[in-house]
Amino acid sequence: MTTDASSNARFVVLEGIEGSGKSTQLATVVEALRAMGIEPECTREPGGTALGERLRGLLLDPDLPGMCPEAELLLMFAARAQHLASVIRPALAAGRWIVSDRFTDASFAYQGAGRGLGIERVARLEEWVQGDLRPDLVLLLDIDPATGLERAVQRGRRDRIEREALDFFARVREAYLERARAYPDRYRIIDGHADPEQVAERVRQALQEWRTKIMPRGA
Amino acid sequence: MTTDASSNARFVVLEGIEGSGKSTQLATVVEALRAMGIEPECTREPGGTALGERLRGLLLDPDLPGMCPEAELLLMFAARAQHLASVIRPALAAGRWIVSDRFTDASFAYQGAGRGLGIERVARLEEWVQGDLRPDLVLLLDIDPATGLERAVQRGRRDRIEREALDFFARVREAYLERARAYPDRYRIIDGHADPEQVAERVRQALQEWRTKIMPRGA
Repeated sequence: MTTDASSNARFVVLEGIEGSGKSTQLATVVEALRAMGIEPECTREPGGTALGERLRGLLLDPDLPGMCPEAELLLMFAARAQHLASVIRPALAAGRWIVSDRFTDASFAYQGAGRGLGIERVARLEEWVQGDLRPDLVLLLDIDPATGLERAVQRGRRDRIEREALDFFARVREAYLERARAYPDRYRIIDGHADPEQVAERVRQALQEWRTKIMPRGA
Repeated sequence: MTTDASSNARFVVLEGIEGSGKSTQLATVVEALRAMGIEPECTREPGGTALGERLRGLLLDPDLPGMCPEAELLLMFAARAQHLASVIRPALAAGRWIVSDRFTDASFAYQGAGRGLGIERVARLEEWVQGDLRPDLVLLLDIDPATGLERAVQRGRRDRIEREALDFFARVREAYLERARAYPDRYRIIDGHADPEQVAERVRQALQEWRTKIMPRGA
């Protein structure tokens, strides 16, 4: 192990469809990291910067229903480029951990599979924007789309993307699961169907096991 | 020549740096086409759609000074993807001519050369968004950057992009000229230094010669 500031910084992402419990479990991840002596920076996509939040507003605006899938994906990657330049790369370079509510896997799942643009076209933009930067750990909160949407509706949230049909979310979920299976080193699938405290315990366990694996002698 | 509706429709673009006279000469192009019996649809970039105009507002917003070049270019192409899907491709498919104030050459010139992203990175997004669609004619209004900026300042316009330094616009102008020289079939360089009526006459001549070349026996 090296001793420079950046050597121990890691990039952790939470992914999942609407109602999977990402926001709740983000707090679990932060608390678990703090218990390990790590103070992470929290961020989200789309968003995380002034430009990103403005683009998030556009992307979720129910008054722009005719947005074509290509434009949607390019906006996601525009927000991501700014997020990388202003937040993620500077934090990692300074040795600070990052925990993000969504990152590029969401583009593969929502625009690549959900909107049917295809995985390969998303991969080309991923390479264009990120080069070889990838998250160190992706916690995928997996949930049945019907259950997830029921939870989202109970929260009263019906933005442009949440108005999609159930089979859209079924494609999104399957794409997430396929990526998790394709890159098992980087992904942990967390069953999100239990109550929040049970899911939180699964998140803590997954994080602890991963942490032990990447840093077997402690930080 | 085929007889279907789309066979005679053409995509004409005006390009040039700030103060080159694009807006004034757009009217010249429209009048000249009308004199040929063609009623074109006029549009502009960034813009041309509800989403595009919202993105234009973001791109020119002086309150977002820290936008990274990659995000700027991705926003341009997001607006362009929507513009192609909602306006340009439907018009051409229906046999209607399109005249646009700027298109992808502006991305090569401003983000590729001006911001230093490089021509090759712009070309990758061009292919991603447009496939093989290219304008049929690009009228490049060429002007010395100092003269152009003086005109722009007199109009009172100092948006985010116009606040750039003179050497930025020198790089933009050179990139425009390089593309015009590389693709002489598609480009006409119009000297924009004279008074508007003289420039308009050059525009009409270039358009007439090009029209005769592509349709020697008339439409």
